[in-house]
Amino acid sequence: MNAEIISVGTELLLGEILNTDARFLAAELSELGINVFYQTVVGDNRGRLIDAVRTAAERSDIIIVSGGLGPTQDDITKEVVCEYFNKELVLHEESLKRMEEYLKRKGLNTVKCNRKQAMLPKGCIVLPNNCGTAPGCIIEENGKTAIMLPGPPHELEAMYTESVKPYLIKKSEDIIYSENLKIFGMGESKVSELLNKYISDYTNPTVAPYAETPGVRLRITAKCKSEDDGKRMVGEVKKEIEDILGDVIYSDKGETLPEAVVHMLTEKGLKISSAESCTGGLFAKLITDIPGSSAVLDESYVTYANEAKTKILGVKPQTLEKYGAVSEQTAREMADGLYKVTKSSVCAVFTGIAGPGGGTAEKPVGLVYTGICINGKTDVYKLQLSGSRDKIRNQACLEVFDLIRKKIM
Amino acid sequence: MNAEIISVGTELLLGEILNTDARFLAAELSELGINVFYQTVVGDNRGRLIDAVRTAAERSDIIIVSGGLGPTQDDITKEVVCEYFNKELVLHEESLKRMEEYLKRKGLNTVKCNRKQAMLPKGCIVLPNNCGTAPGCIIEENGKTAIMLPGPPHELEAMYTESVKPYLIKKSEDIIYSENLKIFGMGESKVSELLNKYISDYTNPTVAPYAETPGVRLRITAKCKSEDDGKRMVGEVKKEIEDILGDVIYSDKGETLPEAVVHMLTEKGLKISSAESCTGGLFAKLITDIPGSSAVLDESYVTYANEAKTKILGVKPQTLEKYGAVSEQTAREMADGLYKVTKSSVCAVFTGIAGPGGGTAEKPVGLVYTGICINGKTDVYKLQLSGSRDKIRNQACLEVFDLIRKKIM
Repeated sequence: MNAEIISVGTELLLGEILNTDARFLAAELSELGINVFYQTVVGDNRGRLIDAVRTAAERSDIIIVSGGLGPTQDDITKEVVCEYFNKELVLHEESLKRMEEYLKRKGLNTVKCNRKQAMLPKGCIVLPNNCGTAPGCIIEENGKTAIMLPGPPHELEAMYTESVKPYLIKKSEDIIYSENLKIFGMGESKVSELLNKYISDYTNPTVAPYAETPGVRLRITAKCKSEDDGKRMVGEVKKEIEDILGDVIYSDKGETLPEAVVHMLTEKGLKISSAESCTGGLFAKLITDIPGSSAVLDESYVTYANEAKTKILGVKPQTLEKYGAVSEQTAREMADGLYKVTKSSVCAVFTGIAGPGGGTAEKPVGLVYTGICINGKTDVYKLQLSGSRDKIRNQACLEVFDLIRKKIM
Repeated sequence: MNAEIISVGTELLLGEILNTDARFLAAELSELGINVFYQTVVGDNRGRLIDAVRTAAERSDIIIVSGGLGPTQDDITKEVVCEYFNKELVLHEESLKRMEEYLKRKGLNTVKCNRKQAMLPKGCIVLPNNCGTAPGCIIEENGKTAIMLPGPPHELEAMYTESVKPYLIKKSEDIIYSENLKIFGMGESKVSELLNKYISDYTNPTVAPYAETPGVRLRITAKCKSEDDGKRMVGEVKKEIEDILGDVIYSDKGETLPEAVVHMLTEKGLKISSAESCTGGLFAKLITDIPGSSAVLDESYVTYANEAKTKILGVKPQTLEKYGAVSEQTAREMADGLYKVTKSSVCAVFTGIAGPGGGTAEKPVGLVYTGICINGKTDVYKLQLSGSRDKIRNQACLEVFDLIRKKIM
């Protein structure tokens, strides 16, 4: 089965927004084994949109049109698709009622033009919208399927997941079951090399690596008759891959690296605290991003200036003087000092040069010392990172999450 | 002049990456007043690519093809475009030499297939690549212009800015001069309403609002003969708009809100420190994101647990007991305490419920108290925010940056 994605919206043609809808749909269709050979973007213009629909219908089995389901005169997707497929638009009472209820919950009145949004192609499959006003719809005609979805990404993604994906899976008779292994500390090319057999030769399940920021995600996908079948098929391959890759796999539940570490700390009942110089609060921010992180973090410090390192952590002025703030010695005293102040089972400190300024030949931009103190015992690590200030700060935090993960595993 | 963007790449069709190239090009072309009516994505497939080029050439003056300039057999953009325009590919010695030098600087050897990248259409305008191996090129034929650019975003953006933009401006004889006003604390619709006359009626300069996260960016763009001309034309309108909008404009230099505040603090020689509960380090992170922020920030605290608020800031246990951690009283004691600890001219504290859990009827998710202490005098503000945990934490920080901006202005 081939599908084609048409995105409708002047804001896309003007470059005001990224086409995240097309990317989402393409990734989802690819997971179902549906080929996408074309994606097109057109504006809210009748002539150009009908041309795009005609071209798509001539070469693809499924046409997904996103956007242009709004209440204004500019929104012409349903009108144009119906014109092409020679269908009539009729009022769908149930959708109008849903919309009125939705707007009421938001404290808004239904205005006249909302009614336009409840006009749907006669005989279509209606796709309810649980996140907004415009329902979507599916037309089946002459062996072609046209699927119309609202443009706002959260509406489109919810409607796809709730209604379109089950529809497409039913169409294909098989179900798709996949699991993701998350990897840190090994690049995509090395992963591909070690798993070459699986990636190149396996057809069911398939194994595909995706470079992510950070790390690599490995997706194992089975086409199968039931979820139990899928779990078994994926499970067998997963076990083999885990044996090959070992502890660079940090999660098989789709967690981020900070999430995996916070969940490990929570399970083990351990507290963590940090003292950050170059990362300036980012490490604590990444921990407290996670709901429930109050179980593991009580307090943390940003010790940006030398004086703060001395005042808060008790780093000796002589150490700062002799070795500099960015040094193994300072990192060690910061970690020891942080443990004295907080008594946390895990203490992590950062001191480095995030750039763009401040680098020298001996201490270049990207040099970061981290001290990790587990139950009072400190180890210091030297990291040499590269890239922008943002990238260096992020990478430093992630390396430390990974070091902590391996230490408390 | 009309242009059309064709993006070539299987990874786009599979939804593995976002089409940032198309968005970048669309925004740039729109700024030059060049209409883009279509964007297309196709894979590395000769038949489908030549169809896309033919269709584009039939309806647009300028065709920009991005991607497919790499060294492998899969990379067929130049071959296909030359086939359509009936051009021969010939070796461009200078590009080969540049490529060899580029690879040598990276410690790499030129391999045979790199030679393919230096094969360019006979008689084309060559676009040097300063960030990678593949040169771009421009063909002019039968009143049509075909521009071929490499796919990696940093290569494409640099090549566009260095070579294509000047080429297109020369083609149009006018230059484009624009300035951006950044707005916080007023929504796009209100801005549009107040500036209706400028947005709807002005044709040169034009005024266009863009919703950003956070706030609104207002772009004033003049088509003019020289930069001086542009500055004068934009300046006149800018002054009028500043009179209408007042202090919701926080920058006319394209800064982010944290940047604007850090720059103000730096100019005034003021220090800032923070004590964060619900934002958990994000506020300090946003400050230290900015190079040179060590001039304004020495130290900061994450006081996540009640005990930390008492231990570090001296918040009274009775206050926490009686009013709760999320209360005006706690925020005030946090701010007063932070000032005692740091003596910073500007002290900012946060205590709130970021969600998703932890909300009650009286203290719902999104309730945040912030205390801002300027030279020892504390004011407490109650914010009621909404959205995800991420959004609530970000919005809380931005509101506080804006409050500080207005206080030290």
